[in-house]
Amino acid sequence: MKLNPNYSSLKSSYLFIDIAHRVAAYKEKNPAADIIRLGIGDVTLPLAQPVVKALQEASAEMGEAETFHGYGPEQGYPFLRQGIAGYYAARGITLAQEEIFVSDGAKSDIGNILELFSPDNTVLIPDPVYPAYVDANLMDGRKIIYAPATKQNGFLPLPDNSVKADIIYICSPNNPTGAAYTKAQLAQWVNCATKNEAVILFDAAYECFVSSPDVPRSIYEVEGAKECAVEICSLSKTAGFTGTRCGYTIVPNTLFANGQSLNKMWNRRQTTKYNETPYIVQRAAAAVFTPEGLAACHKNIEYYKNNAGVIGKVLDQASVWYSGGINSPYIWMECPNGMDSWQFFDLLLEKANIVGTPGAGFGNNGNGYFRLTGFGNAEKTVEAAARLKAFLSTL
Amino acid sequence: MKLNPNYSSLKSSYLFIDIAHRVAAYKEKNPAADIIRLGIGDVTLPLAQPVVKALQEASAEMGEAETFHGYGPEQGYPFLRQGIAGYYAARGITLAQEEIFVSDGAKSDIGNILELFSPDNTVLIPDPVYPAYVDANLMDGRKIIYAPATKQNGFLPLPDNSVKADIIYICSPNNPTGAAYTKAQLAQWVNCATKNEAVILFDAAYECFVSSPDVPRSIYEVEGAKECAVEICSLSKTAGFTGTRCGYTIVPNTLFANGQSLNKMWNRRQTTKYNETPYIVQRAAAAVFTPEGLAACHKNIEYYKNNAGVIGKVLDQASVWYSGGINSPYIWMECPNGMDSWQFFDLLLEKANIVGTPGAGFGNNGNGYFRLTGFGNAEKTVEAAARLKAFLSTL
Repeated sequence: MKLNPNYSSLKSSYLFIDIAHRVAAYKEKNPAADIIRLGIGDVTLPLAQPVVKALQEASAEMGEAETFHGYGPEQGYPFLRQGIAGYYAARGITLAQEEIFVSDGAKSDIGNILELFSPDNTVLIPDPVYPAYVDANLMDGRKIIYAPATKQNGFLPLPDNSVKADIIYICSPNNPTGAAYTKAQLAQWVNCATKNEAVILFDAAYECFVSSPDVPRSIYEVEGAKECAVEICSLSKTAGFTGTRCGYTIVPNTLFANGQSLNKMWNRRQTTKYNETPYIVQRAAAAVFTPEGLAACHKNIEYYKNNAGVIGKVLDQASVWYSGGINSPYIWMECPNGMDSWQFFDLLLEKANIVGTPGAGFGNNGNGYFRLTGFGNAEKTVEAAARLKAFLSTL
Repeated sequence: MKLNPNYSSLKSSYLFIDIAHRVAAYKEKNPAADIIRLGIGDVTLPLAQPVVKALQEASAEMGEAETFHGYGPEQGYPFLRQGIAGYYAARGITLAQEEIFVSDGAKSDIGNILELFSPDNTVLIPDPVYPAYVDANLMDGRKIIYAPATKQNGFLPLPDNSVKADIIYICSPNNPTGAAYTKAQLAQWVNCATKNEAVILFDAAYECFVSSPDVPRSIYEVEGAKECAVEICSLSKTAGFTGTRCGYTIVPNTLFANGQSLNKMWNRRQTTKYNETPYIVQRAAAAVFTPEGLAACHKNIEYYKNNAGVIGKVLDQASVWYSGGINSPYIWMECPNGMDSWQFFDLLLEKANIVGTPGAGFGNNGNGYFRLTGFGNAEKTVEAAARLKAFLSTL
């Protein structure tokens, strides 16, 4: 039996293990230190009450023969697909129900969608980036080229005509940089994909943080995108579903390649290798898209954005360059005095007892940068911001 | 951009659509007909009360900051992996926690596990079989050969030394035939795989129906299996989780190919492309493995097995050959008088108002056979059995 040879090209990632080790070592030497974590990429607020209520009601349904739910449609129940369609309709985007596939989260679909494409394609991935894009393509043996995201382009690379790719990843608002494309910028990517018969895989996991009117929350706000783009989204950040697991992938009916419908191919993939998101979770997700659910989730998002704003204000005052913090819970700051990511990590931990994430962990262009997030507790974030301010003034 | 060319070799499956159309047409002509469905492959009893209680308690936890759960380990929480290890320990099988990967069900893992293997492998699949095995391999472009399951071998094919395969699928107790391998028979497959350096993918989704002492519920009851087999299991039938979604895959630490650990490869696959089973569902699954949970689930399984026994008794009396019905909810009967599967389907619908599943839908060797199941309501099953008895006496 022959193994998939591509796994040998994967590099082990030790980013969060390395962080944990350094923090543990520091704590051992300084047991009294009150360490605040601003590196967290996970939500911390509990599920909104309308969502919890939906979970409990659906759980009770599962315990009675009359309301029990066995196998459901692999693509998701109509009640949820309609809720998602309504969420898009509120922004002027019309989706047919069969264009929406409910999933257990963006991470699965970002990897699994690649099964529709030949390994013999070139993939364009921004650098720095969420590491799963790279690893999923390495596992299939695809050629990867990188779109350099830098301070010069505001960590928002635009199409380079000398580079030809078949599959283009875009994450906006971006993880880890917090940068978000305007509609005019996204239109350049849609034009590029159309011209080159490429497909865009648009990761919209952070769309709920967008408040700038010129920043699209969906790539389908751009004309022509329904002919070249798949959109992958998640309730992880929208509604705090990181441990509840629900997302959705949109494959438009108008998306074709070589005369074949990608919607039909994805439907075939999901009906063969997926077996629906749990009924109770789909009920909880549907509660998110009600007026009460959206209001409750919006409140949580404002909480995180306010945290990001508190950190951003300190950086503004200290004239430290950063992206993000406006349409994103992430702040991507330049390390002061030309420090590299890990030097700044160690110094920030030692001098301010703050833990963040070294940008170098997200790609070569991440070195010299550092990610802070608004996902923490508000009081702790205020305290951390005060420490950060004092620390920066010493440099 | 180039699509995966293998999707064009997939055949569309219309089995359940065809059944629905024929039943609808019959009902239109005979609106008063009281049709009983014995073709159902889904559970019908509600979740057991200890499981519902766990779902509700975990849902409440998700609504409070102190007990909220965000991202968990991709491999599953220790509390559930320990519960599964305990379930195996009760049968004398020792599993390390890191050998157990919690999933959202067997269907996903049966497809996804193939990513560890090169497309350049030959796969051996029984015929008839659960169609997802075939489709998942066609999507990757693997060469498939079939192990003929027939009345002569009791629908339990054994290794053929003239056939060499790299990946061997075994489903025991089998869907759709209900046939289950004895330990001595499974040992032949383990020996065959060991000799040929093949891997066995053992689908144990129906293990909970086993009552014969010589029929293993896990392939790891066979010596040497931990060096050649992956076991994929599900709570769908064990605990009625078809709509709740939880399963697990066991990749032993002792399973190597070309010096590489399959356990480490699967761990890398799951951490890259999967993001854990929902916390609330893992809590529900853990409740299954408590003494109260197991007792409640066992009661439901006995209910379904009793239904299968009621159908089997009628076939015994009418001297109709069948497999299954003992260690399985499925009864796989030979169609009387040399009828093909669809002829018998139509006649049974017309004369007895019973809907079953034509065996031809599961592979070439399924033609001339018919699947009935014990998943229905007990009273309805008794009524259907009486009708079946009367109908068979007219042939």
